[in-house]
Amino acid sequence: VIAAPPPLRWWGWGDRRTEVPSGLAALLHDEVGVGLGTSTPAPPRDAVRLPPSALADAPLLAELRDICGADAVSVADDSRLVHAAGRSYLDLLRLRGADIRCAPDAVVLPADDNETAAVLRACARTGCAVVPFGGGTSVVGGVTPLRGEHGAVVALSTRRLDSLLAVDRVSQMATLQAGMTGPQAEAALAEHGLTLGHFPQSFEYATIGGFAATRSAGQASSGYGRFDDMVLGLRLVAPSGEIVVAGHPATATGPSIRQLVLGSEGRLGVITEVTVRVRRRSGVSRYEGWSFAHFDDGVAAVRAMAQGRVTPDVARLSDQEETRVGMAMAQRGGVAEALGHRYLRMRGHDRGCLLVIGWDSDALLTGARQAESRALIRRHHGIPLGASPGRAWLRQRFRGPYLRDALMDTGVLVETLETATSWANLSALYDAVAATLRQQLRDEFSPLVGCHVSHVYPSGASLYFTVLAHAGEHPGARWIAAKAAACDAILDHGGTITHHHAVGVDHLGYMRREIGADGVVALRALATRLDPSGIMNPGKLIPDDAP
Amino acid sequence: VIAAPPPLRWWGWGDRRTEVPSGLAALLHDEVGVGLGTSTPAPPRDAVRLPPSALADAPLLAELRDICGADAVSVADDSRLVHAAGRSYLDLLRLRGADIRCAPDAVVLPADDNETAAVLRACARTGCAVVPFGGGTSVVGGVTPLRGEHGAVVALSTRRLDSLLAVDRVSQMATLQAGMTGPQAEAALAEHGLTLGHFPQSFEYATIGGFAATRSAGQASSGYGRFDDMVLGLRLVAPSGEIVVAGHPATATGPSIRQLVLGSEGRLGVITEVTVRVRRRSGVSRYEGWSFAHFDDGVAAVRAMAQGRVTPDVARLSDQEETRVGMAMAQRGGVAEALGHRYLRMRGHDRGCLLVIGWDSDALLTGARQAESRALIRRHHGIPLGASPGRAWLRQRFRGPYLRDALMDTGVLVETLETATSWANLSALYDAVAATLRQQLRDEFSPLVGCHVSHVYPSGASLYFTVLAHAGEHPGARWIAAKAAACDAILDHGGTITHHHAVGVDHLGYMRREIGADGVVALRALATRLDPSGIMNPGKLIPDDAP
Repeated sequence: VIAAPPPLRWWGWGDRRTEVPSGLAALLHDEVGVGLGTSTPAPPRDAVRLPPSALADAPLLAELRDICGADAVSVADDSRLVHAAGRSYLDLLRLRGADIRCAPDAVVLPADDNETAAVLRACARTGCAVVPFGGGTSVVGGVTPLRGEHGAVVALSTRRLDSLLAVDRVSQMATLQAGMTGPQAEAALAEHGLTLGHFPQSFEYATIGGFAATRSAGQASSGYGRFDDMVLGLRLVAPSGEIVVAGHPATATGPSIRQLVLGSEGRLGVITEVTVRVRRRSGVSRYEGWSFAHFDDGVAAVRAMAQGRVTPDVARLSDQEETRVGMAMAQRGGVAEALGHRYLRMRGHDRGCLLVIGWDSDALLTGARQAESRALIRRHHGIPLGASPGRAWLRQRFRGPYLRDALMDTGVLVETLETATSWANLSALYDAVAATLRQQLRDEFSPLVGCHVSHVYPSGASLYFTVLAHAGEHPGARWIAAKAAACDAILDHGGTITHHHAVGVDHLGYMRREIGADGVVALRALATRLDPSGIMNPGKLIPDDAP
Repeated sequence: VIAAPPPLRWWGWGDRRTEVPSGLAALLHDEVGVGLGTSTPAPPRDAVRLPPSALADAPLLAELRDICGADAVSVADDSRLVHAAGRSYLDLLRLRGADIRCAPDAVVLPADDNETAAVLRACARTGCAVVPFGGGTSVVGGVTPLRGEHGAVVALSTRRLDSLLAVDRVSQMATLQAGMTGPQAEAALAEHGLTLGHFPQSFEYATIGGFAATRSAGQASSGYGRFDDMVLGLRLVAPSGEIVVAGHPATATGPSIRQLVLGSEGRLGVITEVTVRVRRRSGVSRYEGWSFAHFDDGVAAVRAMAQGRVTPDVARLSDQEETRVGMAMAQRGGVAEALGHRYLRMRGHDRGCLLVIGWDSDALLTGARQAESRALIRRHHGIPLGASPGRAWLRQRFRGPYLRDALMDTGVLVETLETATSWANLSALYDAVAATLRQQLRDEFSPLVGCHVSHVYPSGASLYFTVLAHAGEHPGARWIAAKAAACDAILDHGGTITHHHAVGVDHLGYMRREIGADGVVALRALATRLDPSGIMNPGKLIPDDAP
């Protein structure tokens, strides 16, 4: 088992800097009006003042130290700071502004289920809110340290819950503790020749428990399934008790308790372990690029794959704008070289759409699936670009959040949003959301609004939008307005408010439209029963009573 | 849309008689001690006396007639009788004994969601329990007309909710009303070139709403998925409101409301419609039989298919005992001829295990999947029997419940039970349950206890047991004892208490072991919120407070 990676640097992503590729910088300069001279670097640590901890002299602190050990409870500002926010654009703006209005009053790291349960009981008794904290990578405010009606809030870090508890090679199942990061889980499984196959962009820092609590979907979800598909069993430690779901392959024992805990975003308790489906490591790795002159052709091709049950393990279709940005980023070889080819221009693909498909699972018939996928792509007028665009994508699959930091340094408003809808709705929803974002973020320049389809199902697909705009003077307010308009467009056109980013704070206001007033009532009844004093992650996921 | 089939005859299954095949009769005579002379035919209708309706003069009756129309509310004994029981062996014993201790006080047939909601409100106000009633095919007491703490109980039949509401061919989705039977749904979809592909043994009579409320699994679940996989959206009319889940392909908006309603067995309200995945009708139909000398080899073969993601649409592996019973039933050709072949005897397959595999979906790569499945079977020492055993199975796929009536006529104790567990647990669980049933049902003769694997997953599979024993003097009590011992064996060996028959009354007592005390508490909190007066299907699924 490899050690946990260092936490995210307090104002951004990861532990290393990246540069904005020169081609992208030029594009942003020419089209979006971003001047590379206007660097606004991250603030120095000593510019940050945190509000004092409400728990500094509280008896709860001593009690938590009794439960977990003195080393496992901290009120130090450095510790509180790295648990003070997730990693949405708005989070990053606040952090860069040294604007730390809320921070946890303490950080506590229980080492096992018993300690976790004892921490929750102590907090419930003393009226202290608890924010379960895995990798802290939420982009929807899922780990924002809100107190709700309570006098204090602690971040409960799952970092010490980092063991592979059980492996069953015959049944291809494994039980993982919730605090393992993606790389820790993969490394532990690799010792048994196994893989989880869950690779969201947050893979390097996000945790198993976070994947379960937010219904994460990885880049290879077409081959390996969404994380909520992978989870067979789990354990939830709640303030009022403990829910354990056995890892049966399937069951008809009533409403699914497993599916109640999945997606619960810390509102019902702390997910401390999950039993997941795993796969044999295959040794297969084939990624390749294709070009479509029209986005609709690409959509038709991936729909045909999904409905024919031959989708590659990875299938990502970028629209023209995202493809163009990708080409600008490719400094040598790869996408740019392939897409810039004169042959494509001759075929009307000079503003083409890139499709990356890939196979790396141990599923049988990979050769036949590859042939069938290629045949479907050709039938929908796709042109092969060979392996290099696929390899380029694979190399940079986790790069986005690092690049975002670098873009913010240079004054770019950069954020993503996502949805899913039926194939029949897809085109209208795509047009509406893209038009809304362009309109909302237009100033003297036009924003770049790209989109990709990256999770495909027989009945529909996800749409993932990325915007790059001039930050301007009030980027936070501009993004809030643009996001709100985009969310309305999504709901008006039959999309879900989130396909895999979850609800958190940012989508809370849309939950009534999403699941209905009585759906909200049902969730609240459940939360009230498992967490009677309402300490668990208040202000997220479940709207308050008043409509 | 074809008309609803006539309801099940009041004492048994379907509307036609079948005979016990002579080979099976001989086997039962020789080994189980069943004398064909001891016919105990179903009782004449006029032997049955129902308790008087508690609603005969009640104001509620007039109110229900106002809501649904006078023709849609009945207190007639004939109507009450056909809604008085499901179709478990114990139900059938009681019906044959003319032992109708509980019957609904009225039967009401709302025509739409508004009428359904008004019926529930009227019943909640007056303290009348409501049993949602689809096809009445439950084998776990799911439609037993229990009153709970209320003074009366009505059966709410969904029979008039029988329309195909919407079809989306592009997204391969359709919205069906809950009261459509399997054949009605397939006929309506066939007009659009589509199929649901859900074929449980109860297909001819069971309804779409029942499939959803019980998490039904069809015989082709490997290809088409369980019913709970097929459902994308649904509508639940509850006493306190209405839950509507949109049919998104996937979503990360918190705990799954859809998965709360699926499997709710009428405890939360009435499922009035579902939006399901559908498939194009393929024109493909290939079924074939294979023989294994050892059950374990067959299990290893289907496991390899499931884990390689090449499982046929249908995959059913019978153990030696079930295969032997099947041979006895085959009156000419088919299984018996193929399995009786001298060649098999030479290869040590004279007491072989039959595997039936079949493909009929529109998935691509069917040829490659067939070749891969056959290769895996051969690798695990299977021998091909050709198409006739497959065709024979397909012809008789819905025959079981008819045959059960005929067997009961001749004095046979006949019942099934099922579970699912991981591949690693499968063999020990199989041995334990089979041994338990044999021991419990032994008298001067030994029972026949057969089993098949019919739903396979990467992590495990279902086991479906059938027992044939001499009825003896107290068959009900003997079966109750045997079932209880088998359920303990299932839970002791890591199985789920039900893979697709659901909970109902019969498995209620095992729910605490299955989902834990806090899981039960969570479900009860939910039911209390959606059905505050507790009128919905009392006595099923969710145990009472007292442990």
